[in-house]
Amino acid sequence: MKNRKQSLTGGGLALLLTLLLSGVPGPGARMAAQQNDVDMLRHLYNMALTRGKAYSWLDHLSNQIGGRLSGSVQAEQAIAYTQKELEALGLDRVWLQPVMVPKWVRGAAEFAYIESAPGNTTNVPICALGGSVPTPAGGIKAPVIEVQGLEELQALGREAVEGKIVFFNRPMDPTQINTFRAYAGCVDQRASGAAEAGMLGAVGVIVRSMNLRLDDYPHTGSLRYGDTPEAMRIPAAAISTNGAELLSTTLKLNPDIQFYFRQSCRQYDDVPSYNVIGEIRGSTYPEEILLVGGHLDSWDLGDGSHDDGAGCVQSMEVLRLFMETGYRPRRTLRVVLFMNEENGLRGGRGYAEAAAQKGEKHLFALESDSGGFTPRGFSFDCTDEAFAQIAAWKPLFEPYLIHQFDRGGSGADIGPLKPQGPILAGLRPDTQRYFDYHHAETDTFSAINRRELELGAATMAALVYLVDRYGDALAVSTGGQ
Amino acid sequence: MKNRKQSLTGGGLALLLTLLLSGVPGPGARMAAQQNDVDMLRHLYNMALTRGKAYSWLDHLSNQIGGRLSGSVQAEQAIAYTQKELEALGLDRVWLQPVMVPKWVRGAAEFAYIESAPGNTTNVPICALGGSVPTPAGGIKAPVIEVQGLEELQALGREAVEGKIVFFNRPMDPTQINTFRAYAGCVDQRASGAAEAGMLGAVGVIVRSMNLRLDDYPHTGSLRYGDTPEAMRIPAAAISTNGAELLSTTLKLNPDIQFYFRQSCRQYDDVPSYNVIGEIRGSTYPEEILLVGGHLDSWDLGDGSHDDGAGCVQSMEVLRLFMETGYRPRRTLRVVLFMNEENGLRGGRGYAEAAAQKGEKHLFALESDSGGFTPRGFSFDCTDEAFAQIAAWKPLFEPYLIHQFDRGGSGADIGPLKPQGPILAGLRPDTQRYFDYHHAETDTFSAINRRELELGAATMAALVYLVDRYGDALAVSTGGQ
Repeated sequence: MKNRKQSLTGGGLALLLTLLLSGVPGPGARMAAQQNDVDMLRHLYNMALTRGKAYSWLDHLSNQIGGRLSGSVQAEQAIAYTQKELEALGLDRVWLQPVMVPKWVRGAAEFAYIESAPGNTTNVPICALGGSVPTPAGGIKAPVIEVQGLEELQALGREAVEGKIVFFNRPMDPTQINTFRAYAGCVDQRASGAAEAGMLGAVGVIVRSMNLRLDDYPHTGSLRYGDTPEAMRIPAAAISTNGAELLSTTLKLNPDIQFYFRQSCRQYDDVPSYNVIGEIRGSTYPEEILLVGGHLDSWDLGDGSHDDGAGCVQSMEVLRLFMETGYRPRRTLRVVLFMNEENGLRGGRGYAEAAAQKGEKHLFALESDSGGFTPRGFSFDCTDEAFAQIAAWKPLFEPYLIHQFDRGGSGADIGPLKPQGPILAGLRPDTQRYFDYHHAETDTFSAINRRELELGAATMAALVYLVDRYGDALAVSTGGQ
Repeated sequence: MKNRKQSLTGGGLALLLTLLLSGVPGPGARMAAQQNDVDMLRHLYNMALTRGKAYSWLDHLSNQIGGRLSGSVQAEQAIAYTQKELEALGLDRVWLQPVMVPKWVRGAAEFAYIESAPGNTTNVPICALGGSVPTPAGGIKAPVIEVQGLEELQALGREAVEGKIVFFNRPMDPTQINTFRAYAGCVDQRASGAAEAGMLGAVGVIVRSMNLRLDDYPHTGSLRYGDTPEAMRIPAAAISTNGAELLSTTLKLNPDIQFYFRQSCRQYDDVPSYNVIGEIRGSTYPEEILLVGGHLDSWDLGDGSHDDGAGCVQSMEVLRLFMETGYRPRRTLRVVLFMNEENGLRGGRGYAEAAAQKGEKHLFALESDSGGFTPRGFSFDCTDEAFAQIAAWKPLFEPYLIHQFDRGGSGADIGPLKPQGPILAGLRPDTQRYFDYHHAETDTFSAINRRELELGAATMAALVYLVDRYGDALAVSTGGQ
């Protein structure tokens, strides 16, 4: 492993010696192991907080490259940049994994207004939903029907909907403490609203942005037309929360108002792209893979700092921390920067397919894709036995104010690995601010706090270290060895 | 209690009925009580997150009034505003408690530069430390000696220091997970640097800002001259962290550079001011007081949104939530907005003295003065018995991601109550961003997230509810009844 020795700092070297010396089995070995774990976690956090690279990597991704929609020039730049940075770490192997991705382009800035009476118009901020068809070049103007979701739409039926623009206005539920639950309670409007409204004869769809704040930023995100024939696909856009409030109020005063919107987005043929992958080969069980990752693509409105530049640079930092510490993992530690999470999941699916074809064995996969905020813990998608083992490590995380070890989902990109049986995990940061930025032009580097980002990377590294060290038991509990 | 009935919403009324009905002792009463607690906490959080007033109150305090240094016009405006708002809640009593406060005024904007060679100067951002004497009208120019703290200063002694500006440059320790520990590890330079350097013949003091970021904002804060005779008091200012790095680097290249600074701050005679107090009288034990509070004064550079406008509006919100719920506390619930925490603690001391004189019995006091960020828990300064009782409530807080129930300090303003024996507590929010804003012009309303602020208020209300409901046991464990 070239460069491994050069990267040892004084502290790293001292720790490495401690680890080597105390690694000899015998009486007191267990206690020594526990103390080593305490020291190793402290060392990982100290390094991330004092000499971490995640923040400067993200600065480049966000401010020099910017939004990285699949198939865009920026996505290609991000692939080249992260490949180069991973190579500079002196990993054992860095490579690109080809994957075909959809290419959707927003085109000219969208434009919309509420027309309360002929000539009396108020502009409102909208953005096309990812994957939407365009409006005709001259835009669409039609009466509006407001609904609180797909159920109400279906209850109203074709008669009430035909020829109209359907306005989905169910807000996120502010009483959910976990804001992702509030998101899950609304996102069906965005994902399926255009398909269902189109089948009932609507001419367009406007969706309230998935945002817990009232502000002027529309939040994009992908929709699915599903089986809808091309001729029946209708354009769909998100409206800012303030715009949604205004439209709803205006409709209450006068249900006969018209809404106008124009967008020139376009879906092209698929184009080639890549997952970016790097790994440190395991010293003892090189065939067992521990994966950390995030997704390199982002939406195009902001620069994708929280979603998911943060998860990419945190995952890269995990491997950098191991290199700097000089701790050689017993299992293969792999970072994967997935392409196309936002509008296709082609990177995640392609990676899992390739892994299955090659007969690769993933023991563990951890994704960070919930924003670069103060880490609070993890959620685990695994067997009861594996969870019990992992939950026993909670006390090691207490000094870092990491308290949440929950059962639950992990991350979209690693989900396709599930049939192959690894323990899947997601980093769980504080969620209160996430939907202020998510998929909007506000998702920028200025919304990132350096320490919060670095703490997330250290927390991931700490878990990966423990999985590597105690992976024998985990491999048994997942039926893996 | 006037207005109590009018403030009942549908949900509040239903809950009140539930509480009244299930309050009858008998078989199953304990289980019912536990379910009531679960419901009540859910209700408090829901109200804070959907109809909370904390954010709009803080908007007014921050954006309409601004920084509220003791003795300033803004401090007086804040007293009048919060008194009026508390009165509008229909509390049983709202009053002002007179207290004399120091009046220190910053004067004209400070100015400083590094002079590498005659005529070769670089301006650097500074601000006078609170309580500092001014420089002469023409400023001070002198050679600089950099030290890492008070110990190094004393080790160097008079010979090395006389006639110079002492530059205290010990940074906050980024490896502390709790950033308040990093602050505690540096703040002695700011508090005592001028007194100690002055005694050794220095002509001025420059202190590195207590900030974990590298940026261009100087952070003020109070100093203490202690017994230093007036003639030996030397002026002291904070320099931004970027400025400190530049000054340190410049000194390494050339130890003979000069530093110039000018400030025209001034200490006036004490002036009258007030603590703002409101209360809901207890139904069963009106003589037992549960206090919630923050401090109404702030530094003058920003608008004091995090320090401590947030704590004030959260404390007000606790009483508003109880009024809206229609839950009548058994003990007296009192909000205190303390004056002059930042540079004198006169409000906290005066409040405790008055309480002692009147023979008031404080069972519990909770302060919020650590920023309006996502709440993580509390720290408690109390007996082992009381802590054990309170810690048993932890499961009730789990759904709100409140995990930290620690022993430790509470809040500066409630500290003087300690000899009177109450349980003292401090709200503990996430601390990672706090010192980005603390005492600097960056402490503004735009750095507040509405949900994070509201969650803090609800968390405080939840604890107060439980203390009120189960206070009999607590009163016994503190020797109070």
